[in-house]
Amino acid sequence: MLSVEQAVATLLDHAKRLVAPESAPLLAARGRVLAEAIRAPIDVPPADNSAMDGYALRHADWPGPDDAMRLSQRITAGSAPAALEAGTAARIFTGAEVPAGADTVVMQERCEATAGAVRIGELPDRGANIRRRGQDVQTGQDVLAAGRRLRAQDVGLIASLGLDRVVVYRPLRVAVMSTGDELVEPGRAAGPGQIFNSNRYTLHAQLSAWGFEVVDIGVARDEPVAVRERLLRAAAEADVVLTSGGVSVGEEDHVRDVIEALGRIDLWRIAVKPGKPFAFGAVGDTPFIGLPGNPVSVFVTLLVIARPFLFACQGREDTAPTPLHAPARFRKKASGREDYLRVRMTAAGLEMYGNQSSGALFSTGWADGLARQPAGAAIAEGDPVEFYPWALFD
Amino acid sequence: MLSVEQAVATLLDHAKRLVAPESAPLLAARGRVLAEAIRAPIDVPPADNSAMDGYALRHADWPGPDDAMRLSQRITAGSAPAALEAGTAARIFTGAEVPAGADTVVMQERCEATAGAVRIGELPDRGANIRRRGQDVQTGQDVLAAGRRLRAQDVGLIASLGLDRVVVYRPLRVAVMSTGDELVEPGRAAGPGQIFNSNRYTLHAQLSAWGFEVVDIGVARDEPVAVRERLLRAAAEADVVLTSGGVSVGEEDHVRDVIEALGRIDLWRIAVKPGKPFAFGAVGDTPFIGLPGNPVSVFVTLLVIARPFLFACQGREDTAPTPLHAPARFRKKASGREDYLRVRMTAAGLEMYGNQSSGALFSTGWADGLARQPAGAAIAEGDPVEFYPWALFD
Repeated sequence: MLSVEQAVATLLDHAKRLVAPESAPLLAARGRVLAEAIRAPIDVPPADNSAMDGYALRHADWPGPDDAMRLSQRITAGSAPAALEAGTAARIFTGAEVPAGADTVVMQERCEATAGAVRIGELPDRGANIRRRGQDVQTGQDVLAAGRRLRAQDVGLIASLGLDRVVVYRPLRVAVMSTGDELVEPGRAAGPGQIFNSNRYTLHAQLSAWGFEVVDIGVARDEPVAVRERLLRAAAEADVVLTSGGVSVGEEDHVRDVIEALGRIDLWRIAVKPGKPFAFGAVGDTPFIGLPGNPVSVFVTLLVIARPFLFACQGREDTAPTPLHAPARFRKKASGREDYLRVRMTAAGLEMYGNQSSGALFSTGWADGLARQPAGAAIAEGDPVEFYPWALFD
Repeated sequence: MLSVEQAVATLLDHAKRLVAPESAPLLAARGRVLAEAIRAPIDVPPADNSAMDGYALRHADWPGPDDAMRLSQRITAGSAPAALEAGTAARIFTGAEVPAGADTVVMQERCEATAGAVRIGELPDRGANIRRRGQDVQTGQDVLAAGRRLRAQDVGLIASLGLDRVVVYRPLRVAVMSTGDELVEPGRAAGPGQIFNSNRYTLHAQLSAWGFEVVDIGVARDEPVAVRERLLRAAAEADVVLTSGGVSVGEEDHVRDVIEALGRIDLWRIAVKPGKPFAFGAVGDTPFIGLPGNPVSVFVTLLVIARPFLFACQGREDTAPTPLHAPARFRKKASGREDYLRVRMTAAGLEMYGNQSSGALFSTGWADGLARQPAGAAIAEGDPVEFYPWALFD
């Protein structure tokens, strides 16, 4: 059996970016993946500016606490100040540019204003209350790396550099196909032996959350002609084909034979719970990933095993989530496979959902994320365990 | 000064849901907020089914390891089995319904099939390899609570219940207005004294990420007529009005006076870094929140103080993120205000960005989240601190 690490590494060995760069307006760029690093075209702030409402002066000009200084100008945010007249002070507001010749701002609470003048009762250190030019970002600095998926604050940071467009990768197109004659679509009536198709919905929603464009291929009946027709369509319309179910070694699984004829397929047994059967190959030139059929196995293998590959195809660089650690509020025997447990975060630590069956999708709604139990390791109450909140997979 | 806790509690006291329920197709429901709990209309699984490809039999009928059992039927996933003939076994596949009369499934690897019969070399415990009806969800059970924002796996869970539509709240409409004569839009040229408007972009992107509909009111010049005209438009078009800048006590801040005339405004000083000045009130009947003007203050007060209020207006119940804990890889003196530090998660613990200035937006791109330093508490190297990965605010 392959370890999770080996499976992910093998997939990444075969991954290459499948999407081209394109330009996008900044207001629509959240969640997109940068195709080029953002290099600062300016200093931020672009000039020394006041961190306070107050008075700007040259530190050496202070006449002491009892004498007033004449006010020679009034500088509001957005206005261009003149150089400071020697021996005078300037009224200044938060964010306003500090005039040449001034080196200190005194907050207004420490000052007493009179007609056309100000008495400064207490002088702070030279340089006080001034935000220096380039303090946040210097011209030429790489502020965000290529391959990064843009968060809200990144969008703000890019705006602060004066850029209103970014070069991003077009969204990866991922085809989703379910197999299984037992599947009936939600909203219809389920007959004897039938179950509702949840994998299509889980996959559609999670792939969309990752910013991919989902090509919905529906459900293929478990027979070769239907499977072949849909796989060919999937490969033609998408960058990657993803299926759930139909890739174990059972006699009723036709996906494997069809893909073997159309391209190539490797069946893997991965030492992971939930999960284990997993397929990787190609339909023609289009990469193919075959997830297991059980609902929780689909979700976990999508997050843990398929995700790094899909992210790499999208041009993302940040593919390995850094786990957090929290004490277990449960115990669990060692197992031969790496186990991804559905757990909930509480102030006291991680609680484990009672039914860890690969069919119990309810556990994924109940949980706040996954705890990783390495193969061969038992977990005792209070042990620190690796914790992956759902959001770490975003 | 108000503590963060007091500020959030006061806002929540004034919050009420401002959006009506509506029906949405399940495939478009990710990220929407449930207006009604999801109650299971069926058991999941709907019937006992096989967890393996193998053979179903009545445990008591096993003839021992040397004798074959006649195969009386073949049950594939999706087909309706007949009751099991006494003394016989049924070929069965993963996910297929277990026939009445059978109580055990033997995995095929333990069996030897011959023409029309099977020899079962080793009998597992009674009940083995069967997923019981209702094992995951029972009819009538509340599986997801009203007020929950739907994740990908929730969408899958709802599908598994056979539901193809959900009742969700319509997205909250939030108007965003920036103030400040120093602001110039990205993509234009900045003159002396001017800086690029980042707050509009940060707010637009974060509010969109939360699933809100953003009503973009642009930038108001620092003069009463312009501010009044835009605030009236914001209040008419949106459920909540959010501004950045313009609510401190400086003489150039007109937002306060205008809102006092149009409704009411309370200026708060919150014991938080970055942040402090914060306003809450109403423009007519529309709630108004005035964030500070500095880019990092805007982002942090949006996440920490405004977010619970906005979520409550959207009908969300899950408004308080549970922090994680990680050791500090830095030291920090105590401060009189609660400090939200931009930190990065490493295997060794949390690293703090060097420049924690409220103007240094770069820190929010660099960081993986916020660490909370309570007011009056110093942080020593190795201390466990509360850590809020960005995603906890989703």
